[in-house]
Amino acid sequence: MAYNLLKGKKGIIFGALDEKSIAWKVALKAKEEGAEFTLTNAPIALRMGVINQLAESCGAEIIPADATSLEDLENLFTKSMEILGGKIDFVLHSIGMSPNVRKNKAYGDLNYDWFLKTLDISGLSFHKVMQVAEKMDAMNEWGSILALSYIAAQRTFPDYSDMAQAKAVLESIARSYGYRFAKSKNVRVNTISQSPTKTTAGTGVGGFDAFFDYADKMSPLGNASSEDCANYIITMFSDFTRMVTMQNLMHDGGFSSSGITEDLIEELRK
Amino acid sequence: MAYNLLKGKKGIIFGALDEKSIAWKVALKAKEEGAEFTLTNAPIALRMGVINQLAESCGAEIIPADATSLEDLENLFTKSMEILGGKIDFVLHSIGMSPNVRKNKAYGDLNYDWFLKTLDISGLSFHKVMQVAEKMDAMNEWGSILALSYIAAQRTFPDYSDMAQAKAVLESIARSYGYRFAKSKNVRVNTISQSPTKTTAGTGVGGFDAFFDYADKMSPLGNASSEDCANYIITMFSDFTRMVTMQNLMHDGGFSSSGITEDLIEELRK
Amino acid sequence: MAYNLLKGKKGIIFGALDEKSIAWKVALKAKEEGAEFTLTNAPIALRMGVINQLAESCGAEIIPADATSLEDLENLFTKSMEILGGKIDFVLHSIGMSPNVRKNKAYGDLNYDWFLKTLDISGLSFHKVMQVAEKMDAMNEWGSILALSYIAAQRTFPDYSDMAQAKAVLESIARSYGYRFAKSKNVRVNTISQSPTKTTAGTGVGGFDAFFDYADKMSPLGNASSEDCANYIITMFSDFTRMVTMQNLMHDGGFSSSGITEDLIEELRK
Amino acid sequence: MAYNLLKGKKGIIFGALDEKSIAWKVALKAKEEGAEFTLTNAPIALRMGVINQLAESCGAEIIPADATSLEDLENLFTKSMEILGGKIDFVLHSIGMSPNVRKNKAYGDLNYDWFLKTLDISGLSFHKVMQVAEKMDAMNEWGSILALSYIAAQRTFPDYSDMAQAKAVLESIARSYGYRFAKSKNVRVNTISQSPTKTTAGTGVGGFDAFFDYADKMSPLGNASSEDCANYIITMFSDFTRMVTMQNLMHDGGFSSSGITEDLIEELRK
Repeated sequence: MAYNLLKGKKGIIFGALDEKSIAWKVALKAKEEGAEFTLTNAPIALRMGVINQLAESCGAEIIPADATSLEDLENLFTKSMEILGGKIDFVLHSIGMSPNVRKNKAYGDLNYDWFLKTLDISGLSFHKVMQVAEKMDAMNEWGSILALSYIAAQRTFPDYSDMAQAKAVLESIARSYGYRFAKSKNVRVNTISQSPTKTTAGTGVGGFDAFFDYADKMSPLGNASSEDCANYIITMFSDFTRMVTMQNLMHDGGFSSSGITEDLIEELRK
Repeated sequence: MAYNLLKGKKGIIFGALDEKSIAWKVALKAKEEGAEFTLTNAPIALRMGVINQLAESCGAEIIPADATSLEDLENLFTKSMEILGGKIDFVLHSIGMSPNVRKNKAYGDLNYDWFLKTLDISGLSFHKVMQVAEKMDAMNEWGSILALSYIAAQRTFPDYSDMAQAKAVLESIARSYGYRFAKSKNVRVNTISQSPTKTTAGTGVGGFDAFFDYADKMSPLGNASSEDCANYIITMFSDFTRMVTMQNLMHDGGFSSSGITEDLIEELRK
Repeated sequence: MAYNLLKGKKGIIFGALDEKSIAWKVALKAKEEGAEFTLTNAPIALRMGVINQLAESCGAEIIPADATSLEDLENLFTKSMEILGGKIDFVLHSIGMSPNVRKNKAYGDLNYDWFLKTLDISGLSFHKVMQVAEKMDAMNEWGSILALSYIAAQRTFPDYSDMAQAKAVLESIARSYGYRFAKSKNVRVNTISQSPTKTTAGTGVGGFDAFFDYADKMSPLGNASSEDCANYIITMFSDFTRMVTMQNLMHDGGFSSSGITEDLIEELRK
Repeated sequence: MAYNLLKGKKGIIFGALDEKSIAWKVALKAKEEGAEFTLTNAPIALRMGVINQLAESCGAEIIPADATSLEDLENLFTKSMEILGGKIDFVLHSIGMSPNVRKNKAYGDLNYDWFLKTLDISGLSFHKVMQVAEKMDAMNEWGSILALSYIAAQRTFPDYSDMAQAKAVLESIARSYGYRFAKSKNVRVNTISQSPTKTTAGTGVGGFDAFFDYADKMSPLGNASSEDCANYIITMFSDFTRMVTMQNLMHDGGFSSSGITEDLIEELRK
């Protein structure tokens, strides 16, 4: 069922890789709700993915951009405004990658160049997107900018490694830039802290299945799916949530507020 | 502009006193978005208020109920289900009163009977609403229950007195009952921590104007109005937010994440 | 090994029931560190316990007091100041009881008179202690007041029932009264959120063993023992921590910051 | 007055620049309490400072080390263990620097190489210290590792710029490495979030005086001084706090829990 919640809104969606991606679901849902947008991802990710299918179903153009490159981001905003015929109302940042995690480096044996790379790709890129947008005056008043985060920013999940620090940076940037963008353009900036999700990126993290099942048992409503997340994101892009800013919003079926659950106790008793 | 976001949904709205009330705005907005609901307030508040006007514009019936009385709450749910023709999808709890605040008792000279009364009216009433609803099996699957809170639950505002404890209880009940209701009916329970709002109740708190202005300067987007709050609440009652539960959601223009702002610094420099 | 950390300090310790009590360990440790203090508990608890042994080893007097009774508290402070020869430097509040938990009432079937009783005994009593102390001007400058809490104030533990709300009230009172006492006497007020502890009171909570073991596996250093807690409390009573106030201090071996642990994953894999 | 709280303990103290430094006060106090330690700072900072005076009063050796260099850190731990005659019991990390802040870059015009430098110096260096210590097996069982943080990690202070992200990284590393070091050696890792302090580094941040005064008015006990901070740190290095780990400890006179204060209201009314 569609409500036209994003009618007339223009956006940019980062990070749709394949149909398991949260960003992919957001694109479909945003289309359904009346938005127009461009899709973007790193050139290498575009080659791996099947994003053309998504672009077709959404009538959206794909603009490759390495989110750590200011040039690419400038090009992205310029082209997006041309294609969409005006300034941007919403941006979704769904980007994360850690060379240390990929290469299975233990947290006590991190490669520090890679650590900085993790922070640059998964954290600073969010700042870059906003700095470029602000300098180009590319955002409409009362626009909404979102990034996807994870509760590893608050609590330790051993396999999440330096991505925990990246998410801490990401959420911190949302607060710092949220302050700035509120003052200059009434733009709100938030992060959504999503349940572990069976995306291609998510499942790359070691021990993923263990913490997916654990999180599911520890979430009274169960883990939130990527469809659920897309729905929630739509509300955050709509005009109904204009005064929510500089927040990290838990979208997790109750995980973050659960100390223990009967489901987990039962499991432990086995 | 309306989107039919709550089409087919049935609700109960507590606490609409007059047109400054957040609950009043929620009622108008919920009507606009297609919901049907009953209105309720304490008998004494009904006599003081002008709720009949609201009831007429919404085509809603008024059912008096003292939210601390289990009997009244049972009657409220029974009648609401009769009138609305089915189980309930959403409930708004917007109730708060402190005899100690009303009588200007200093925090170092509290009357403890009144303190318990503050907790009963402003906190336990939320538990009672849910316990009655659950026992009567009055909620639909995937329903949404909300209460209005304030950041005094986390930080001290001297004039807020024992209402700080009441809000702490309220938010704690949202977590505890949210767990329970998730397991039994997939119902979500949250609180919204709203900016100081110029309602008849809000302005009853001593020093209100001072902290309204301070909060406005400390909120990068300014204080959220009651209309903004009503909008946000609509999203929380809609099907777009099904997996958000046991959360306290800051709706405050960024106040909670601001350490200091340039507006405040400027004011202090004067 | 003793350091004379509390040399010359006078205190009041609530809640020593038997040798498993945290308060009992605090008394022994405070004695060792040079403090003088009185011991107090509810008359009924005194009859059940073996507190005389403790009083003897500490050279401390026992003053019965129902912590919900202002009269009893006035008597307690009056007598304590007489016995100790001056005003009070530290107070430990270690009091908690829920009739709903004792009678095994489900959280969806609470008795509300008992709920208020839980809040009065386990929460408001902390306010009463401080209101009485302040009115009598019984605290020394730079004194330290502590209450024992539990992480159920932040996250749901189903068996903890309305004690979750009581701890939320307790921690909120610490912030509110901490503000007040800082301004009037530079007295600091904090809560310590302790690991589940095998005390006579703690083990009364249903499902205790399950969450004790779970918490132990989820705490990288393991659960903190009552001896550890006593040590920590000594530092909070000493002059080394004068500027820490209105805080809830996690003393939990890392539980609160752990999202998942390898020990738990291993257990779940069995 | 001294208590011998750190008798027999061996440590490494980073970041003593001059007598205004928190690390300087910690060194004096640690000496007083019976500890032996080495002092370290970046070679360039050593040239600017007067650390020789401190080294003399403490009978401590100075070992220059760039905290971003693994080689320097290995040398530091090797030499420290030689000099002190054994493994290390405590480490204080008091390091922070942002080229963007120094060069007065606006938050909407950051230089990203400098941003990464800020994170490397002020954040990753903490990880490096621990990774080196763990690989060399340089820590004693039940040791204590601390870093100094600031509430900008949680709330926005516009002039703090990318140091907010650096402190977010720092606190996140404390949780992640705290988990690891707890499991391997029962070593605890925490951050202390200190009031704004009139150090040579602190006053380098723009608008410092404004937020110092504001923080003082918003802290019921006033801002905590560097002496107070040194005292608190001593307790965290002592055996009294063994089970506190992965925490960010507010040492701020109550600032973090204050929503508004009467002092500030009065100031705003002027």
